[in-house]
Amino acid sequence: MKNKPTLTLVKIGGAIIDNQTELVQLLHYFAKIEGHKILVHGGGKSASEMAKKIGLTPLFLNGRRLTDESMLEVVIMTYCGTINKSIVSKLQAFDTNAIGFSGTDANLIRSKKRASETVDFGFVGDVVAVNANVLEMMVTNHLVPVVCAITHDGNGQLLNTNADTIAAEIAIALRPYYDVKLVYIFEKNGVLDDSDDDDSVIESLDFNRYLTLKEQNKIHSGMLPKLENAFHAARFGVPDVSIGSTNLLQNSKMTHTKIYIDNYEY
Amino acid sequence: MKNKPTLTLVKIGGAIIDNQTELVQLLHYFAKIEGHKILVHGGGKSASEMAKKIGLTPLFLNGRRLTDESMLEVVIMTYCGTINKSIVSKLQAFDTNAIGFSGTDANLIRSKKRASETVDFGFVGDVVAVNANVLEMMVTNHLVPVVCAITHDGNGQLLNTNADTIAAEIAIALRPYYDVKLVYIFEKNGVLDDSDDDDSVIESLDFNRYLTLKEQNKIHSGMLPKLENAFHAARFGVPDVSIGSTNLLQNSKMTHTKIYIDNYEY
Repeated sequence: MKNKPTLTLVKIGGAIIDNQTELVQLLHYFAKIEGHKILVHGGGKSASEMAKKIGLTPLFLNGRRLTDESMLEVVIMTYCGTINKSIVSKLQAFDTNAIGFSGTDANLIRSKKRASETVDFGFVGDVVAVNANVLEMMVTNHLVPVVCAITHDGNGQLLNTNADTIAAEIAIALRPYYDVKLVYIFEKNGVLDDSDDDDSVIESLDFNRYLTLKEQNKIHSGMLPKLENAFHAARFGVPDVSIGSTNLLQNSKMTHTKIYIDNYEY
Repeated sequence: MKNKPTLTLVKIGGAIIDNQTELVQLLHYFAKIEGHKILVHGGGKSASEMAKKIGLTPLFLNGRRLTDESMLEVVIMTYCGTINKSIVSKLQAFDTNAIGFSGTDANLIRSKKRASETVDFGFVGDVVAVNANVLEMMVTNHLVPVVCAITHDGNGQLLNTNADTIAAEIAIALRPYYDVKLVYIFEKNGVLDDSDDDDSVIESLDFNRYLTLKEQNKIHSGMLPKLENAFHAARFGVPDVSIGSTNLLQNSKMTHTKIYIDNYEY
């Protein structure tokens, strides 16, 4: 079963999106990646900044946004509008035929509004289904999907979804078609053993070690959902999952964290 | 040359987008149109309302928006974000596999920033090229493109473009592939001979009569660019161009205005 083509799925997060110079550098590297590829992006601070401009107060709990109706509108317009179109137009300038997607476009990602338990996160969707066929069709036609983290419930309701989760679920859905290489890009070279020491990158991270780091409180806030999603993807058969900095896209030998399941490359 | 499949290209404007009940009704009718179809939408008041919320003053000249950098950002986020995703998700709920587009997605519509003459309209783009191949690929794969009126210059700059123009240029670009039926939907049943009398619809409008109506000041503001674009499409070989109300999508016998070139159906 080594005949599947390779597809590189890159997820970029907030800090990179908020820094125009860094973003352009990353898109330049991304544009040079050969073969099939997909970009998934988060939102950065832009949604919160826009919310404040129109008099809303952004609220978070454990790194996850509380999304009421007004905030949902802000999130939709900044993620699907401002950020997605900015990225797509920049990639076009780098001769990459990018095409923007939210989860409602071509029914790409259907989700279910999360039931409120102790906390009501509001208009937040948990992924139910990814339409891998449509991505395969785009990629086969030499298009490069750029996916933002807005999903839909199929009944006309748009929902906010974690971008790390979107990346993992797309990677899993594409396994029948491609050998997927899933890369989470963030502001460090990888998962750090000591958050004060940028040189303490853990190059091989298995789930047991992750649990230990979590107990030791060495991993917290936004890194928790990112790593949970990375392990989820690896566990469901994505053959190559790694976490690193922008430079990893230019040079695959760059120090980074590779995700393993129980010391065993899945 | 009667072997080309038919494609219905519907353009909807501001007043319909601003009225949720009317919009849902229209999308319901649109969803029921058989065969290939594409929807092009304008922006309505939402961009101006959002601009005011963040302290900007919307400016217009002869019905055309003056788009400075801040206003461009607002226009991008409302057209590509709020409105486009609202329409796509509603069509998905009507079992129509809609996919949102701006002009930068898949390099759909390239434009050139308008040179400032007496008036500098700002970040406004005049259409240079429409990528008909990508629309044909989408339509052949049973997707329904929903296109907003943001274009790009290929160098990373997004530009605001008149939605009536977008509809006309797409219709013209698709002639080699389809018998295009271009329908401009707005709040009246058609072009009125007497703007105070909704029953005075001109059912056949040729260019000479249009010029006369214009001289008599019976056509003004937003209708001028709409009709200029309608005649442009007819003149460049779009075989069926009409202007009417939402009901025209449900019932093609509904009173409406049909565009002719010099009393002669082009």
